[in-house]
Amino acid sequence: MTLENISSNKSFGGWNKQYTHRSTALNCNMRFAIFLPPQIVSGEKVPVLYWLSGLTCTDENFMHKAGAQRLAAELGMAIVAPDTSPRGDDVTDDADGSYDFGLGAGFYVNATQAPFNRHYQMYDYVVNELPDLIEANFPVTQQRAISGHSMGGHGALTIALKNPARFSSVSAFSPIVNPMQCPWGQKAFSGYLGKDIEQWKAYDATELMKHTDARLPALVDQGDQDNFMVEQLKPEALVAVAESVGYPLELRMQEGYDHSYFFIASFIEDHLRFHAKHFA
Amino acid sequence: MTLENISSNKSFGGWNKQYTHRSTALNCNMRFAIFLPPQIVSGEKVPVLYWLSGLTCTDENFMHKAGAQRLAAELGMAIVAPDTSPRGDDVTDDADGSYDFGLGAGFYVNATQAPFNRHYQMYDYVVNELPDLIEANFPVTQQRAISGHSMGGHGALTIALKNPARFSSVSAFSPIVNPMQCPWGQKAFSGYLGKDIEQWKAYDATELMKHTDARLPALVDQGDQDNFMVEQLKPEALVAVAESVGYPLELRMQEGYDHSYFFIASFIEDHLRFHAKHFA
Repeated sequence: MTLENISSNKSFGGWNKQYTHRSTALNCNMRFAIFLPPQIVSGEKVPVLYWLSGLTCTDENFMHKAGAQRLAAELGMAIVAPDTSPRGDDVTDDADGSYDFGLGAGFYVNATQAPFNRHYQMYDYVVNELPDLIEANFPVTQQRAISGHSMGGHGALTIALKNPARFSSVSAFSPIVNPMQCPWGQKAFSGYLGKDIEQWKAYDATELMKHTDARLPALVDQGDQDNFMVEQLKPEALVAVAESVGYPLELRMQEGYDHSYFFIASFIEDHLRFHAKHFA
Repeated sequence: MTLENISSNKSFGGWNKQYTHRSTALNCNMRFAIFLPPQIVSGEKVPVLYWLSGLTCTDENFMHKAGAQRLAAELGMAIVAPDTSPRGDDVTDDADGSYDFGLGAGFYVNATQAPFNRHYQMYDYVVNELPDLIEANFPVTQQRAISGHSMGGHGALTIALKNPARFSSVSAFSPIVNPMQCPWGQKAFSGYLGKDIEQWKAYDATELMKHTDARLPALVDQGDQDNFMVEQLKPEALVAVAESVGYPLELRMQEGYDHSYFFIASFIEDHLRFHAKHFA
């Protein structure tokens, strides 16, 4: 697999870079962003935090708005931010061009339904292809953590719960924790996975937590003024399951915060320190 | 003057807000952003850093990308970011729609040339109208500092040099320090100020520094990999004048950094601490 470097900006002594490459899993060209901390200059290999963004985002939103590089540079942590869906002229978008299905809304699943199954294999891309690519091309260890926002929080939680051996910790901001029970998730899963809701359970964090033996440490921040909390995010569903099965989930309800990157920036330091602690 | 609040996002215990208002100086409706730190909750009044953005920017770029809120919240400092030009359907834009003149490129001058003189009075707006509005409507002291990037660095330096009694310190990232001698400045000053280059000297930091008695502390950061440095920014011109007149300018050439917000984010902490020290 060939990586093409398309941008490089020095940042806190390290580098923000963007690359494009052909994705086998997604059957299209993809772009990702990576922050490389200054420790790599001395030949040190660093662990990687994978960040999954939310609806409508690309690889850029987190790198531009979260302010994570300062502490990642201090801690010696790389951050990798993939795009949120396959892209390109031949990738089928939502017929109505809505923001919550199709391009920019891959939902981190492997689609089984035509025509989406041709490209929408974001689960395989994030779990396997992208880490393989990163570990083959950058000075990183095989220590991995995963985090994300909203749709990306759903992605981070489900991927971590299904792959506890590949990640040492998981966190999320404002995640969709029970997509089977909310409009965003029902629309996405109907389109990508079909009508059989039994198939949906494989990508629903609340369902997965009921049955997993995994005990990967999990930190979730949720703003109590988030306009999407009641209808779409439903954090109480995950908390109830975590309590019933004894899962080590810390969910913090943050007073006055909303769904924006201003919220993420305010608490990203805690998440980076949480992941760094579990890398050790 | 009536302020209309159009957004509010909690951030680091404080608030990012945007307001619109009718501007007398600019003869149009304007939008600005303000960060209010958490100290105001207890009734404390806080000093204000005015941030002037660069070409094509609005009031949002700095607030979304610079990561300044974390330390501003800690230091107890408000930040105000105005838009970079007058706006609206009746505001004359560049005839060619270029990015470096007209809308988004007000250059912080008072235009004397028709049709631009009807609205392009950004100097008066930033020096007088906006601080008056802020100080009448928010819990702030009359302690003011000013900073900016590129075109906004030019704005910050010229405004501070011309108004040393109104600001306690000035800083800039990648400023246009000698606009009379670079293509961006020559285009803007020709259009806004006319052909008489004697009139341009009133808005050129290098010219102003030659003749001022002001000794406002000044900090400038410049990336040595900035693509605009040689042709447009010319930091050496300001350094030479500062040395010749004994002006307290610290210009730091930052190795490997470019013109982007990744550069600003990397060093904004130093600028906030610099201004906080001089507020005291």
